[in-house]
Amino acid sequence: MASGESSAESAVTPGAVRVALLGCGTVGTEVVRLITEQADDLTARVGAPVELAGVAVRRPHRHPWLTETHGHLVTTDAAALATRDDVDAVVEVIGGIEPVRGWLLAALAAGKSVVTANKALLAEDGPTLAEAADASGADLYYEAAVAGAIPLLRPLRESLAGDRITRVAGIVNGTSNFILSAMSSGGTSYADALEEATRLGYAEADPSADVDGYDAASKAAILASLAFHTRITASDVHREGMRGVSAADVAAARRLGCTIKLLAICERVVDEAPDGSVAESVSARVYPAMVPDSHPLAGVDGAFNAVFVEAEAAGQLMFYGQGAGGAPTASAVLGDLVAVARNRTGGGRSPRESAYADLPVRPIGEVPTRYHVDLEVADREGVLATIAGAFAKQGVSIAAVRQTGGVFGAADGDPGQARLTVVTHSAPEAALSATVSALLELDIVPGVAGVLRVEGLGRAVAALGMGE
Amino acid sequence: MASGESSAESAVTPGAVRVALLGCGTVGTEVVRLITEQADDLTARVGAPVELAGVAVRRPHRHPWLTETHGHLVTTDAAALATRDDVDAVVEVIGGIEPVRGWLLAALAAGKSVVTANKALLAEDGPTLAEAADASGADLYYEAAVAGAIPLLRPLRESLAGDRITRVAGIVNGTSNFILSAMSSGGTSYADALEEATRLGYAEADPSADVDGYDAASKAAILASLAFHTRITASDVHREGMRGVSAADVAAARRLGCTIKLLAICERVVDEAPDGSVAESVSARVYPAMVPDSHPLAGVDGAFNAVFVEAEAAGQLMFYGQGAGGAPTASAVLGDLVAVARNRTGGGRSPRESAYADLPVRPIGEVPTRYHVDLEVADREGVLATIAGAFAKQGVSIAAVRQTGGVFGAADGDPGQARLTVVTHSAPEAALSATVSALLELDIVPGVAGVLRVEGLGRAVAALGMGE
Repeated sequence: MASGESSAESAVTPGAVRVALLGCGTVGTEVVRLITEQADDLTARVGAPVELAGVAVRRPHRHPWLTETHGHLVTTDAAALATRDDVDAVVEVIGGIEPVRGWLLAALAAGKSVVTANKALLAEDGPTLAEAADASGADLYYEAAVAGAIPLLRPLRESLAGDRITRVAGIVNGTSNFILSAMSSGGTSYADALEEATRLGYAEADPSADVDGYDAASKAAILASLAFHTRITASDVHREGMRGVSAADVAAARRLGCTIKLLAICERVVDEAPDGSVAESVSARVYPAMVPDSHPLAGVDGAFNAVFVEAEAAGQLMFYGQGAGGAPTASAVLGDLVAVARNRTGGGRSPRESAYADLPVRPIGEVPTRYHVDLEVADREGVLATIAGAFAKQGVSIAAVRQTGGVFGAADGDPGQARLTVVTHSAPEAALSATVSALLELDIVPGVAGVLRVEGLGRAVAALGMGE
Repeated sequence: MASGESSAESAVTPGAVRVALLGCGTVGTEVVRLITEQADDLTARVGAPVELAGVAVRRPHRHPWLTETHGHLVTTDAAALATRDDVDAVVEVIGGIEPVRGWLLAALAAGKSVVTANKALLAEDGPTLAEAADASGADLYYEAAVAGAIPLLRPLRESLAGDRITRVAGIVNGTSNFILSAMSSGGTSYADALEEATRLGYAEADPSADVDGYDAASKAAILASLAFHTRITASDVHREGMRGVSAADVAAARRLGCTIKLLAICERVVDEAPDGSVAESVSARVYPAMVPDSHPLAGVDGAFNAVFVEAEAAGQLMFYGQGAGGAPTASAVLGDLVAVARNRTGGGRSPRESAYADLPVRPIGEVPTRYHVDLEVADREGVLATIAGAFAKQGVSIAAVRQTGGVFGAADGDPGQARLTVVTHSAPEAALSATVSALLELDIVPGVAGVLRVEGLGRAVAALGMGE
């Protein structure tokens, strides 16, 4: 700890672990509150006091509570605070890549431990942060970056460190889940559900990060990196958002006994060659998919998150809780901060990041899933045979076909159209895409109304007795 | 690491973390398998090899696989192995209090880190083990002691270390859950369901530890100690087993839209005195209770475990997975072993146990829950008023009354009996016991057919939109 601080800084308790907080929005405010209100508990748990050394915000006048209660700690100079001599740990809850990356790298280089909730930065450049932490022997923790309050990264990094994880799959974006839940329960359109989410504060003015899957893709990259000891960035994650999910899709899912969820799926894929050699790869992807109502993920509504983890020895695990919000996220931040403080006082370090497995990323075209395809077709003899032929030509096997909806278009003098729903067996994405293209070339197929994946969630489902 | 080992011991890899395994039953066999098969992964994750230094078993001839594959490591002298110079960590999967306690204390005193799955020992004498670990600077980890593969203790000790946990409640004994699931789905009696569980290997020849709640009580003691930073032993846990649950109870639960589960419940109870002062205490209890079918715990069937955790900032969390079995338990052991090995190679220690809060244990008589009371009553006018009066006299408020079953006993010339089901509002156990005693004094109440608690699981339920 440095001596000779200016009087504008807070008094330093001897032996205290001193924390610089960067950002003081919803999460930061709760972090300040918890550090202050639970000071005695934290001291007892750590073996030393944990105290705020400073709070950096861009516009102090926008934080009346903070300036009133902790005015002497407030600064607008985050860069200086992050490397100040009297700071042991930096908690970052601002988000975004720049200028935060530079601040955190400088803090780590100066030996400050870092606790961050910044999923975008971690998914883009986590390894650089990890290297900086290794170089100076500082800690890097980021439990709050994925699934808010749910202890998920520590279990993956530590509890399952002696096991082989095969899959991590779940609902990791509360905003899109809230919208899908509203569409599912209320039969409302995407636009109306988004409007409600925005009104209630679940969605931001620009909802793109949530509804286009960028947020979930960042989280998938972090989860896949930890689970498979391989460097996966957000750009490695196949990403489809949920803007395209229509009320008709929701209704179609319901007819199948399914619910549509925006899923993040990270899998270890093992291919055995004819010569018996084995090649492993990682698939990380985010998209809306139909989930059987009997699967626990189907019942995860509103802003909640839930993640299934499968490992060879542990079998199937599920983690459930609040994925966002000030207090839940702050809980995760504080847990990490206690770990940092324990390490500072007792020696020790956060587990090092490891990318030793260095598995290749499997292209989405080679990832097999089941599909639900909604087709508009001419209501004519022989249509089914033609369509079945188009699927067969691409090697996509059909599990079920159903004519849904009545005849339509007949009033226009047209011979009449019907709607055909096809559910496939597992097929690679590339084969399905080729099938859809081929179908659209047929004059008996005026349009493809919807294509959605159906995720049985494999072994997870089998374990729950649902089969696939 | 010691030099000059005898040739009977295994070759020591320089820098390796050397593990003594005590016990090699179902779990131990899987530990040996994982350490052997995942050697490369473990080395990469730890930064040093993790290797077996020895395996202690009482009767080597009963372990043909072990003696065949690792014969040079087998010993019958657990005490000597646990303190041998070339051993860094001791993994104990024998169970029971003695002689294991002495071996582990000696190992800790000699600076060996300990990983144990021994819930009985931890619940009886955990603090003594923790003190021994503190004294020598060794690690003590025991994730496998509660809920098998489910990462639960690490989240409580570490992820939620900056939060205030208010409740931990769940299904932590797979055997009793299997029996209750079988009774519930098959309508079978307790005796038949137990027989099936024994036949399938889920229940031991002497099922007492499981069905009488001893196992769950040990786990509740461990959970409450960690969650509330208070020393709770198994004897502090109020324990009622599930031998007394009848097929009629299961049927009665179903009529109420409930399922009977053997629950372990640990709560922080806050009492506010009229003068505004606040007194905190801990309630830890195990008993069969009715759980609403809409609650996720009701759907946890067979040998699975699930635990709800509520904390002030994090809100409600759920953890689900396999609570027992060789491979799942070994997964938890290996996770702890990796932590020990990382600490050995990188410095650092397991979080110290803390009992600083030192909260008193709340007597079960003062713990309020709702009750379901099944009464045989004389089928006479005024009976309901008399019975309602008996409840009211003890301050137990009635939520619902229903006459169930038909008139019976009439064929014996009796004026006829009916069955009355009473569901109460929340009432202290002492008041309910006094009510039942008073009811049995009434000549219009020939018998009390069943008394079962109804657990709405408080805020957990509210969060799931079920109310209480």
